[in-house]
Formats: sequence, C-alpha cells, structure tokens
Amino acid sequence: MKKQFIVIGLGRFGSSLTKTLVEAGHEVLAVDKDISLVQEMAEIATHAIQADSTDESVLKELGAGNFSHGIVAIGENLQASILTTLLLKEMQIPKVTVKARNIMHGKVLTKIGADQIVYPERDMGIRLGRQLSSDNLIDYIELSPHYHLVEMKAPKAMNGLTLQQLDIRAKYGCNVMAIRSDEEINISPRAEDTIQTGDTLLLIGSSEEINELERKYE
Amino acid sequence: MKKQFIVIGLGRFGSSLTKTLVEAGHEVLAVDKDISLVQEMAEIATHAIQADSTDESVLKELGAGNFSHGIVAIGENLQASILTTLLLKEMQIPKVTVKARNIMHGKVLTKIGADQIVYPERDMGIRLGRQLSSDNLIDYIELSPHYHLVEMKAPKAMNGLTLQQLDIRAKYGCNVMAIRSDEEINISPRAEDTIQTGDTLLLIGSSEEINELERKYE
Amino acid sequence: MKKQFIVIGLGRFGSSLTKTLVEAGHEVLAVDKDISLVQEMAEIATHAIQADSTDESVLKELGAGNFSHGIVAIGENLQASILTTLLLKEMQIPKVTVKARNIMHGKVLTKIGADQIVYPERDMGIRLGRQLSSDNLIDYIELSPHYHLVEMKAPKAMNGLTLQQLDIRAKYGCNVMAIRSDEEINISPRAEDTIQTGDTLLLIGSSEEINELERKYE
Amino acid sequence: MKKQFIVIGLGRFGSSLTKTLVEAGHEVLAVDKDISLVQEMAEIATHAIQADSTDESVLKELGAGNFSHGIVAIGENLQASILTTLLLKEMQIPKVTVKARNIMHGKVLTKIGADQIVYPERDMGIRLGRQLSSDNLIDYIELSPHYHLVEMKAPKAMNGLTLQQLDIRAKYGCNVMAIRSDEEINISPRAEDTIQTGDTLLLIGSSEEINELERKYE
Amino acid sequence: MKKQFIVIGLGRFGSSLTKTLVEAGHEVLAVDKDISLVQEMAEIATHAIQADSTDESVLKELGAGNFSHGIVAIGENLQASILTTLLLKEMQIPKVTVKARNIMHGKVLTKIGADQIVYPERDMGIRLGRQLSSDNLIDYIELSPHYHLVEMKAPKAMNGLTLQQLDIRAKYGCNVMAIRSDEEINISPRAEDTIQTGDTLLLIGSSEEINELERKYE
Amino acid sequence: MKKQFIVIGLGRFGSSLTKTLVEAGHEVLAVDKDISLVQEMAEIATHAIQADSTDESVLKELGAGNFSHGIVAIGENLQASILTTLLLKEMQIPKVTVKARNIMHGKVLTKIGADQIVYPERDMGIRLGRQLSSDNLIDYIELSPHYHLVEMKAPKAMNGLTLQQLDIRAKYGCNVMAIRSDEEINISPRAEDTIQTGDTLLLIGSSEEINELERKYE
Amino acid sequence: MKKQFIVIGLGRFGSSLTKTLVEAGHEVLAVDKDISLVQEMAEIATHAIQADSTDESVLKELGAGNFSHGIVAIGENLQASILTTLLLKEMQIPKVTVKARNIMHGKVLTKIGADQIVYPERDMGIRLGRQLSSDNLIDYIELSPHYHLVEMKAPKAMNGLTLQQLDIRAKYGCNVMAIRSDEEINISPRAEDTIQTGDTLLLIGSSEEINELERKYE
Amino acid sequence: MKKQFIVIGLGRFGSSLTKTLVEAGHEVLAVDKDISLVQEMAEIATHAIQADSTDESVLKELGAGNFSHGIVAIGENLQASILTTLLLKEMQIPKVTVKARNIMHGKVLTKIGADQIVYPERDMGIRLGRQLSSDNLIDYIELSPHYHLVEMKAPKAMNGLTLQQLDIRAKYGCNVMAIRSDEEINISPRAEDTIQTGDTLLLIGSSEEINELERKYE
Repeated sequence: MKKQFIVIGLGRFGSSLTKTLVEAGHEVLAVDKDISLVQEMAEIATHAIQADSTDESVLKELGAGNFSHGIVAIGENLQASILTTLLLKEMQIPKVTVKARNIMHGKVLTKIGADQIVYPERDMGIRLGRQLSSDNLIDYIELSPHYHLVEMKAPKAMNGLTLQQLDIRAKYGCNVMAIRSDEEINISPRAEDTIQTGDTLLLIGSSEEINELERKYE
Repeated sequence: MKKQFIVIGLGRFGSSLTKTLVEAGHEVLAVDKDISLVQEMAEIATHAIQADSTDESVLKELGAGNFSHGIVAIGENLQASILTTLLLKEMQIPKVTVKARNIMHGKVLTKIGADQIVYPERDMGIRLGRQLSSDNLIDYIELSPHYHLVEMKAPKAMNGLTLQQLDIRAKYGCNVMAIRSDEEINISPRAEDTIQTGDTLLLIGSSEEINELERKYE
Repeated sequence: MKKQFIVIGLGRFGSSLTKTLVEAGHEVLAVDKDISLVQEMAEIATHAIQADSTDESVLKELGAGNFSHGIVAIGENLQASILTTLLLKEMQIPKVTVKARNIMHGKVLTKIGADQIVYPERDMGIRLGRQLSSDNLIDYIELSPHYHLVEMKAPKAMNGLTLQQLDIRAKYGCNVMAIRSDEEINISPRAEDTIQTGDTLLLIGSSEEINELERKYE
Repeated sequence: MKKQFIVIGLGRFGSSLTKTLVEAGHEVLAVDKDISLVQEMAEIATHAIQADSTDESVLKELGAGNFSHGIVAIGENLQASILTTLLLKEMQIPKVTVKARNIMHGKVLTKIGADQIVYPERDMGIRLGRQLSSDNLIDYIELSPHYHLVEMKAPKAMNGLTLQQLDIRAKYGCNVMAIRSDEEINISPRAEDTIQTGDTLLLIGSSEEINELERKYE
Repeated sequence: MKKQFIVIGLGRFGSSLTKTLVEAGHEVLAVDKDISLVQEMAEIATHAIQADSTDESVLKELGAGNFSHGIVAIGENLQASILTTLLLKEMQIPKVTVKARNIMHGKVLTKIGADQIVYPERDMGIRLGRQLSSDNLIDYIELSPHYHLVEMKAPKAMNGLTLQQLDIRAKYGCNVMAIRSDEEINISPRAEDTIQTGDTLLLIGSSEEINELERKYE
Repeated sequence: MKKQFIVIGLGRFGSSLTKTLVEAGHEVLAVDKDISLVQEMAEIATHAIQADSTDESVLKELGAGNFSHGIVAIGENLQASILTTLLLKEMQIPKVTVKARNIMHGKVLTKIGADQIVYPERDMGIRLGRQLSSDNLIDYIELSPHYHLVEMKAPKAMNGLTLQQLDIRAKYGCNVMAIRSDEEINISPRAEDTIQTGDTLLLIGSSEEINELERKYE
Repeated sequence: MKKQFIVIGLGRFGSSLTKTLVEAGHEVLAVDKDISLVQEMAEIATHAIQADSTDESVLKELGAGNFSHGIVAIGENLQASILTTLLLKEMQIPKVTVKARNIMHGKVLTKIGADQIVYPERDMGIRLGRQLSSDNLIDYIELSPHYHLVEMKAPKAMNGLTLQQLDIRAKYGCNVMAIRSDEEINISPRAEDTIQTGDTLLLIGSSEEINELERKYE
Repeated sequence: MKKQFIVIGLGRFGSSLTKTLVEAGHEVLAVDKDISLVQEMAEIATHAIQADSTDESVLKELGAGNFSHGIVAIGENLQASILTTLLLKEMQIPKVTVKARNIMHGKVLTKIGADQIVYPERDMGIRLGRQLSSDNLIDYIELSPHYHLVEMKAPKAMNGLTLQQLDIRAKYGCNVMAIRSDEEINISPRAEDTIQTGDTLLLIGSSEEINELERKYE
C-alpha cells in the first residue's frame, strides 16, 4: 500500500530515509529550511520544498495534515524539533516519528505527542560495535532480549565438517537455520550437509550460546 | 577473543560504539579533544583521555600503535579525520574503521589507507525507511542483493490459518523459517502449525516475493 | 501558610517575583546560570544559587523535589525552559508555573506538564493599554468577561454632585461600590454623599456601561 | 474620546499594548526598526511602519508631533530609548510613556522629559508573586498603601455559612463588598446571604487584615 | 588654586587632558574600564584606577562626590556617558564636563545635568580648517563673533616696510597689536617699526578685514 | 586665494574640517568609504564621493593629483592612512596633512611623505586641560614656549580698579593688550581705564607671570 | 610545445605562477572561488573563471580532464586541496602539482594521488637564508647534495688579480666557470683573465669548498 | 663570518629561513607573538622568544639594536610589519630585510627604511612556472635580463650524440658549460664527449636560444 510521508529535515539521515521510502514506492514530500539540501532532494523526492516547519501557516499551505506519516529528522535543534512535532500532531497526522539526540529529548518529544522516537547515531554505534566485536558477525536481528538471529561467516575451523560432525545444537544450544554459499541459500540444512570456508551461516540462539560457539571456532 | 580498540571521536555515535564494545568484553581507549565528552566516557570506557589525535607525538604517547583496531568517529571535520587516519595507519594499526559523511569523503579516506568506511546516518536512514515502508516489517538482514531475511508481524488476515492453508512457499516463493509467539520460538515450523495474531514470522525470500506476500495480506 | 518556592531564572521578572514572595513571608530558592544575577538576589532570596537547571543531577542536589511550587522564569530560551519544566515535574513538584513568550510555546509547556503558563509582557501590555485608553482609569479587575471592577478618578464634571444627582445606576447601569478621598474610604456610599474632584470611585459594571459613563463626563 | 497614539517598539509588550489600544477604539501608529515585527502588526494597528525612531527627520515625516500620546516600548537599548524620548518631547507630544529596565534608567528617562515610566516585567513579577503567595487570591487593586481591594476564591471552610455567621467585619476589620457566583454578582450582600464553595468574594481591607482572614480559613 | 578632578575615560583625549591638568598642578583621579589605559596613566595621574563608572557603588567607593570637577571623556558609548554623568551629578559634583559626539547627544547630556559639553573632534576640525584656509594664519582667538585676534606670519610683500607705510588700520580697519621676531616681542609697535620676513604679527579685527588684508599681500 | 582640497575620511573631525574650509570659500572634494558619511557631506562639500582611497586607480579617476592640498583624516586604520598618504604624495599633491593617533604613527607617516601631522584629540585634551586649569582663562595662543597671549575674564577682585591702580606690568611682568566689554574692544588701554566685572582682558606674558597674576586675584 | 594548465587557487603564489606560464606561451585556465582574485587574473590568464573546485560537476563543465597539467595552489584549506586533487586525478589529468603547508599534508596529498608536492614558503625561506648567509652570494643551483653552482659577487680582495694568481682550483678545489662584467659574459675564462671589483663569478664546487673560498676573501 | 640575525615572524617562511641561517652557522633570535610558533623554533633557533615586536620597549629589552641584520617576516599584517621595521631601523640595525605582499606595500616599507624587500610567494610562483614551462628544466639562474644559466635534463633525442654532432653553439648560440651524469660532473666538456639519457646539462645562453634548443629536441 502506497503511503504519503512528509519528511522534515534533509541532512544525511533524512535524505537517505527519503530516498529509501521513494524507492519502496511511497510518496514523499521533503522539507528543509536550507535550499541547498532541498535542491539535492529535488530529483529524488516526490516533491521537495524549502520551508520553515515551525510556522503553522506554512505547514497548512503544504497540506501537512493530509499525510499519513510525518518524520521529523531535525537532529540538532530541539526547539525546532518540538515545535514541528507539536504542529504535525495538531494537524492530526496519524503517526509522527522523531529523531532525538538523547533519552531526555526523547521524553520531551513523547510528551509533545511524538508516536515514535529514533536515535540513529546511538543505534548505529551499537550496531557497528557488535559487528566489530566479532570477527565473523555480519549482521543480526534481536528477536527478543534472549533470542538473536545472526548472520555470520563460517569460521575456518568448520571447513569440510558436516552439521552432524559439528553437532552445534547439542554442544551450544543454538540452531543453524540456513547456509548460504555465494548466491545459493540452503534453507533446510540436513545433518550431512558440509560447511565450506566462505559460507555464511544463519543461526538462532541466545547471545551467550552464539558467543560460546564463536569462541570455540576462533 | 578480547581485542584492543582505540576510538577517536566521542559524539553520540562514538560513545555508543564505545559502550557496546566494552559491554562485549573488549578494551577501549576513548579519545576526544573535548574534555566534557571524555568525562562522560570516563566510567564506561577502559580508559578515556582528552587529546588531539592529529598530533603524531600525542598518538605515540598513547601507544596508539599497539591497538588491534582503530576507529575514527570524527564526523564533521574531514581534515582531522584524514590526518588521524593517516597517523593510525603509519603506526601500523592492522585495521582502521572511519566514519565518513559522504561517498567522496569515503574515497579520500580509502586512499589515505582506511580499511573500512562507515556511513552511520545514511545507513540508519535506509534502515528506518525500510521499516516505515511496511506496516509489518520489524527488522531485516540483507543476505544478498536477491535474498532478504525479514522479521515481520503476522498480518491479521493470517490469524487462525495453518501454514498449509497459507501455502506461502507455493504462492509467493518465500519460506517461513520460524514463528515466534511471545518468548517461544518455533524454529522448525510444520504444515499444521497455526499463525496467531501477535506472532512474528521469520521469512527468507527476495524482496519482491516478500512485498507481494505483504500486499496480499494487508 | 508558609510555602517553599524554587524560582529558576532571575531576570527582571524572576527577581521581582522572588522579592515579592519573600516579602509575603515565603521561602524562596533563587536559581540562575548567571552568577551576577544570583549575586544580586543573594540578600533578597532565602537562598540564591548559581546552577544549570537543565541538568537533572544539579536539580537533585538542590533538593528541587521538596519544593511545593516551582517557577520557571527563563523567558528567552525555550529549550532550557522545556527541559527545566520536564525535570521539575518528574521530581514531583505539585505545581509548576512557567513564563512563556507566546501561545505556541505555552502549548508545548502545557504538554510537558506545566500547571500554569504566564505571559508577563503580553499581560502588562494589555494592562497599560487599558489604563492609557481612559484618562480616569487607575486600575481594574476583570471579574468575568462581562463584569469589571474599576478604580477611576472622579471626572471633574462630577465635582460637587451627590450620588442621587448623578443617578449612575439608573443612567448607566453600573454601581458605585466605594468612594475614596485621600486615605479615607467610604465603603457604603449613600445617595446624599457628594463627589469631590480628586476622589476615586470604585465601580462595578460591564465595560460598555463604564465606558459610556466615562464618555459622558469627559 | 478617541486618542492618537504612536507606539515605538513592537516586541511582546508593545504589540500587546497596541492591540489593546486599538480594541479600545483608539488610533495607533505602530513603529519598529524590525520589518518582521511591523508586518505582524500590519493588520492590527491603524498604521504600521518600519522606521528608525532615533532619526529626527524620520519622526517628522511620520508627523510624530501630531500624536496626543507617545509610547516608547524599546526595552533593551537605553540609547535608542533616550534619543526617541528626547525627539518626541521636542516635537511637543503632550504625554510620553517610556518602558524602562530599572530605576536608574527610569531616572535618566525622566530627566530627558518622559512623563511616565513603566516597568512591565518588574510589575508582573510583583503581581504574580502576590497571587502565588495566597491560594485564594485571584486579583487585586492597591487602592492605597493601606487599603487593598482583593478578589478571592471563597475558602472551603466558609461553605454554607452566612455573612452574619462569618462576621468578617468584626473579626478581621475588612468588608465584603460583593459576592459573585458564576455570572451573577451580588453587589449589596446582606447578613443572611450564604457563601458557597466556588463563590468569589470582593473584599476591602488592609493587607494584614486580609492575610489574617485568609490564614484563618485555610 | 589647586583643584580636584576626576577624569573618566582615558582615550587619547582623556589622557592628554589628564596630563595637562597634572602639569598645571591639579590633582587628577584617572578612571577607565580598560586596565591597559589605566596603566599608561599610572605614572602621570595623581591616582589611576580601573573601574566601571556606571556602577553607583563603585563611584561612591572612589569618593567621586568629593571632587570639585568631573570630566566624562567616554566618547563612543552614549549609554555609559549618560549613566556616569547622572551619577556624578547625583553625587553633587559642582561642575561636570562631558565629551559628546554630536549636538543631539549634547542635548541629552545637558538634560541629564551636564554643566558643559565639549566636542573635541568637531572643534579641532574647525581649528585646522581655519589654519589651512590661510597660508599665513598660525593661530587665532575668537574674541566675539565680530572680533578675532590672529597670529599670522608676516606676508613676504610686507618685507622692509614700516607700519606707517603699510597703514593697515586706515586701509583695512584692523590693528597690529604686536610684532614678534624670533623670541623678541614688540608689544607696543610704533609707526616707524619695520616688518621683516619671518616676523609674526598679532592683529585684532573682524574676519573680513583680516581676510582682505591677507588677500592684498598674497 | 581659493584653494582645492581633497579631504579623505569624513568622521567628526573630517566633516567639521570640510565644513570650515567650504565656509572659508575653498573647494573641497570629500571622500569616504562609508556611503552614509558621504551623504551627510553631500550638501556641504563642493563634491562628495564614496571611494576607496587605498586604490590608486580610484584616486586617479578622482583627479587627486590636481588638488593643492590633501588631508587624510582616517584616524583608526593606520594601514589605510599610510597607503592613502603614499598615493597622494606619488600623485604630486604639494601638501598633505595627516591625522595620526600617536607619535609613533606620526613618525611613520612623516617617513611616507606626509608634510604635516596633526593629533586632534591630544591637542583638544591639552586645550581643555588649560581652560579647566584656570577659572578665568577663556582661550590662549602659545606665541612661543615663553610667551603666551591669553584671553581671560577679569577677576572680580579687579572690579572698579584702573590699570594704574592694578599696575600689572610692574607687579607681574605681563602686559594688558586690550580690554573687551561686551562688543566693544579697547585696543590701546590707558592707565586711567577702569576694569569692570564681566570685562575680558587680553594679556601677553610668560605662563608663570600670568599664573601668578591669576592666583593673586582669585 | 604549448601546454594546457589549469591553475586552481589565485593567491599571490598561484597568480604569479599563472603569469609566468602565460608569458612562457602556455594556455592557462585560472580558477578561484573568490571573484575578486579571478578578476585580477582576467587579463593575464587565457581564461579566468570563478568556480568551486571541490564540486565534481563544476570541474566537468570546465573540461578539467582535458588539461595536461593541473596545479592546486590552495594553500590554507587542506580539505579543499585534497578534494580538488582527488577530482583532478579521477578526471585523468596526467600530472597534478599541489602546494602544501607541511610535510604531513604533503604525505596526505601524495596518497590521494598528487604527482608533485611543492612547499613555496619553506623553499623561499631556505633560498633567502642561503643568500643572507653570505655577503657575496647572489643565486645558486643545487646540482646534487655535493655539487653547487653559485653566482657570487667577486670579493673586493680579488680585484686586479688574474685567475692564475688566484689559483682557485688548486687552493679551494672549486672551478670558475664564467666571469660576468656588466652585460658581457666570459664563458671560457683563461688563466690570464683579470677579476675586477663588480664582476660576478660562476663557480662549481662543494658547499664547503665555496664557503672556504668566500671566508678567505672576506 | 658569523652574523647575528633577529627574525621576526615565524610562519612557514620565517621558520624555514631561521633554520637555514642556523645551519649555515649564524646566530638567530627568533621572535613571534604566537607562543606555539615560538615553541616550534625553540630547539632550532639560537634563542626563541614570544614578544610583540611593535612595542619599542620590548625590542629594547631584546637588545634588538645589537643585531647585524633584522628580518621582518610578518606577511599578513602591514601595520605590524611597518611599525616593526621602523623600530628596527631606529635602533640602528645596519640591514633590515622585510617580506611584503605586493609592490605597493614594498614601496611603503622602503620609505620607512627597509633595506631589502622580498616577495617569497610571488618569486616561488615564477620559479615553479618556469620549471613547469619546460619538460627538461630543473633549475636556473637569471644572470642578467639577457643571459640565463640553466640546469636541464638532456632531451632523449640527444642520446648517444657527441657535442660535436649536436653542434649546439653554432646552431642555437648557447654554450654547454658542464655535463653531469649521476654524481660526476664534467666541467670542461670536449667536442667528442657523448650525451647519455639521464645526463644533466648546464647551459648558458639567452632564454630564446635555450627555448629554441629545447623545442628542437622535444
């Protein structure tokens, strides 16, 4: 279903967000006070307009109230972020997502009516931190505080061994969900399937279980 | 295996990265020119020091060359970022990861010797864009340009149906890898298992296949 | 009953407020970031402290949560005003009064939890406007949108006339509540009492009635 | 009688003053150096002009000498305030009211020829201080240093009692001038009239008498 | 008679004034906000102190009220000039001389209580203008709007002529009061005295008479 | 003889100088970089032009080389003062007068080719200092380091006395050259002429002689 | 052979370089962000354009890739210097020469792809240092670390002596290559040729040999 | 002979100059207002002192008058450059060399007394321009406007030819003074000597002759 987004703030975060939404087939009105940032978005966003989002009459002219989702990506200026969020909620936009610098700013924005708070720099710090922590980790999904789904490079020590030989479930408590070699993905791996250097494993387990597995095969 | 990181630049990205690395059991020397940022890291990082990372003698005093991994998280000042990267590589740090503002800065840093370039704000923009594009998408891993692994809320229209009734593989070409209800994860779902509202599905497929599935059950 | 106030922001408004509260017998902790403003309050307030009110740990050290009433008189900096208000309400101060620049800022502060918003400059503009609008008006209380109580100089044309001769109630619909001559106040004026130039009248009526009376005796 | 005002300085105080004067039926020429403040007053004031009030030729072109009352609401810039006041008095405006920051500035302005000095922020601080000092006080008029007329919420402890039972005059020396319940005002209250919670009392007395009354019924 | 001066403002004008007064045997307290200017005066003035002259308590500590003459030589900052003048007059200094930028500032300062206003740059402009206007004029005193006393180099065309031959009084209406040759001054010149090139004449007359004389002998 | 002046720098000194030269019948081209200063001179100077005097081509266009006298009244910017002086002398202006801040700047300007250096603020400081040093001194001419010609109010103690009675020459060594009462000037005072309060005396003598005379009649 | 240069940065170094290249018959496109510097080059360079050299699309429009040699003379801004150098090399300019502030910047620029690094201020410091070190040295070429070719004024002590008498080769180990007197150059000096005061000698030798020769004839 | 230099201004030019002079065995006192520049010179210069060179008393304390040569390398601040030069000349330093930005500044400095003016950035621009103009030119000495001595790489087309075969003197009018191959220098080349690729030639001739030679062998 096509959605209508208004993205306010076209810095590196806001512009990359805009591009992704447009590529996913949505309509995006991109807004910033800085004309040069607006110009860079002109060919990417559905519409790009230079405007002051803290001015109620401006937002009304833009028909901000008709959008299904507002995103306030003004990171550095709490005051502008607050006033914009307040105005978008007063115009009855169903969902407003706001970028915040820290937890305290997040609290203020929530009280003002923000439906979702995001902390992109903090989150990317965590994400990169996890990847660098391990030599094999490529990406991960935190399914719950206990269960993680991780994509990892198969450790060299596993080279040539079958899943049966590795016996990962019994030894470490986590499960191999899939094995990818180049562009092929084996999504129902069997006991006799062999791991090759360069393969990628998809594992589900607790972070302790996965860490222990990784340490063993370092 | 415990690693030794030197993180230079303690803004929101660098500080959250530092914290994640320390929590994962690594040693981190946190460095910034701004004493107030250093103080905030004092209890989190293994060591936190106020220093100018573009001064070679300073880096030598810090023993920067002994770290296994350097991270340059100075985002706004290309010159400082370049000089720091150059010095870290000259001191023979095996791996240096550098935060960049845009592709062109990334190119310069690579020529200077950076081993890995990261674009946190752009990447978080993409990530949030994908989540907001869909009402059900919670998180995802991009296994390859063709295959995605997605965590999604089970659409309401699936409520009470078995996997057999849904026949996802045949109809959409993608596979249900696991079904999570609250804290329980069913990692080998069978044809007769039933989806409940509130369940979370783990699917593997191409992004087109997954999009089509989602549209059908909207 | 003695109350405990914490007044944050010691500009002209905040300092005059502090002085009035102390003179009325209350305890006041006066706080500002600017040491010179704090020093001026040192002999007036019960306590005067230089501190950053947007820092939660600072407010805790001051025991801000134990005050019965917080007043945020930071006029120009919306961000500081918001963060301070948020912190005071999180510390459970029963009543927090906040000075605002305009209606929109007032709305934000109310959402954040402010119990009372004041607009001193706007209100004094109105007050002076009313006094200058009439040659005789000294002060007034707006009892309701319809009824005003006004203190006015007796117009010269009334000099030597009795209330009976003036017959104000019948002619203009408003009532003379009291007549003041120098330090004497006649609070139950009778029909035969005479008005002298220099007397002050207390009248109750609608603003139209009072205006008409004034115009007649100009 | 319609008057002609020239208001110089259109900040929050000056603009609210302008609006009040226009609403009271007077003509107002609103002047400021800042075009954006002038534009905000364009639809409110009779005329609004962007001009430098410290330039004699400019004031002459505006015909400043023909106004019956000048108001200098330039608060922060003493020099501009002084030069404007001097010029207005040299142009023979009968009455010039000037906003001042503090007593010393007030003295200077008086010597220059200002007819009336106002201190809006100080006065509003006092006003709010008095209201917050008491739980019941709504508004007040300072009739003389000794006599105050106050509008107060009837304390709960008075609920259901008649004026005779309360015997306020005898016990506290102050007089109940009127009792208001919702939109009705009883301006000649009798001994047998009963006070209800939610009523508002108009009292005349010294501030000590009124304070004592309030303390008794807290 | 020795006098007590307080000179406030130690720029080029104030410092040269201070020096002249001290050389004439008076006591001078030299005051400025700028410590480097104070230091330059330390060995010249009787006392030199760094202080803010707009602060009443500071002036009292300096005992400003005991001086017989105050000089406010703060040229560029009208506000400081005004407040200082006001305070000096409030402290009952008999005579206060103030440097002003222009006539309008002079008016303000006079209203504030300044006893004498000086315009040094304007006056020196006039003085130099007059000297440059004539090839022979060295200096002059404006005795009245009609009579000037001028010191001029004797024009070459007068060389070797006696006063009788020149017959200045009859021809031009002005009088030769004295003739100076090197260090000798002839203060009662007789008809037979001869003018030599290099002599200096002291003449009294109207400016027209003197101009005409000069033109003749050019 | 009419002269052609070019005055560069139209501050208070330069503008007053320009006015005096024009009033004396000379032609003046007034130049400044600041258009507002040029506009103020537009009706006073023969010509007034906004131009950068440190640009050789600009000075050539103005025909600066044709003027008989250049005056550089740029006080605060030594560099502009120097470059302008250099250019004017290179264009062969016969006489160039330059305003300087202090002796050292004066030296530089002389080396660059300035024909005359003036220090208006210093000189006016001296002038005012001398006038304030004495209660009677009105003006003076410094004929030589030894001889001064002074204009002074006749001390009250001389009232009604004849020159013979006063015997000034014998007692103090200085000479009364003239006596002025109102608009009358007696330029050959005789022994029997009487001094009246309000008269003005013109005296020639050394400064010691004159000081002693003044002290005697204080 | 005529070459095509693009010179970016038109300060004193870049503009003098441009002029020299044009005088040598080459084509030069002169580029700077500062329009006033571009205008000064307009009549000197083949083309002069105001442009931002860190913007890839701008460089493409200028056809930067077609030049045979790029010179980046942006001295103070390392970031602009780096980005410009990177872009020029990406556009395949065969040779890019870059001005650098210091050795570390030089290293960065080399890594980015600069073909030649120049340090004009350092080099001129060395050059002047050498000339000032000797009273006779006029200029020199450093042929190798060991051999220098120097142009020096003939020391006075050599006046009237023949090369044979001086016997320079035998005594000091260096060779007289030529003797210049005024505009005549003797390029094959013989043993009987005589040195005159005012002659210039061209010598080849080690710096020690030449120094010793000079010391002897001081 | 050891000389005593005082170098004022320690930027890239001044510091490289200082270093060269010290290496040549002279004494150098290095002076700058900027302490960090002074510290960098501390180990290189004979003495390095932080001082304001426009303050006469400071220069006297440094004993500036005792140096045989002063060098003013303050490039950007003409005023400081002028005052410093003036003071050094007043202190009787025999020779003062001053760095200037352009010809006009050079003129001023010469009038002030500078003995030698240098333009390092302009000169290096010329020098680099000449080298880049030719593919073979390495360095050159401008012996006179007509005669140049150049060091050039032997063009490839000369490889294997003898001087006789090349017949340079006859064909181009210029002379081969020396041929260098690696570290060997042949300073009296004979007709039968052969040129090898990689050799360096020293030629004397007019610039036209040398250019023509170069063009022939391109």
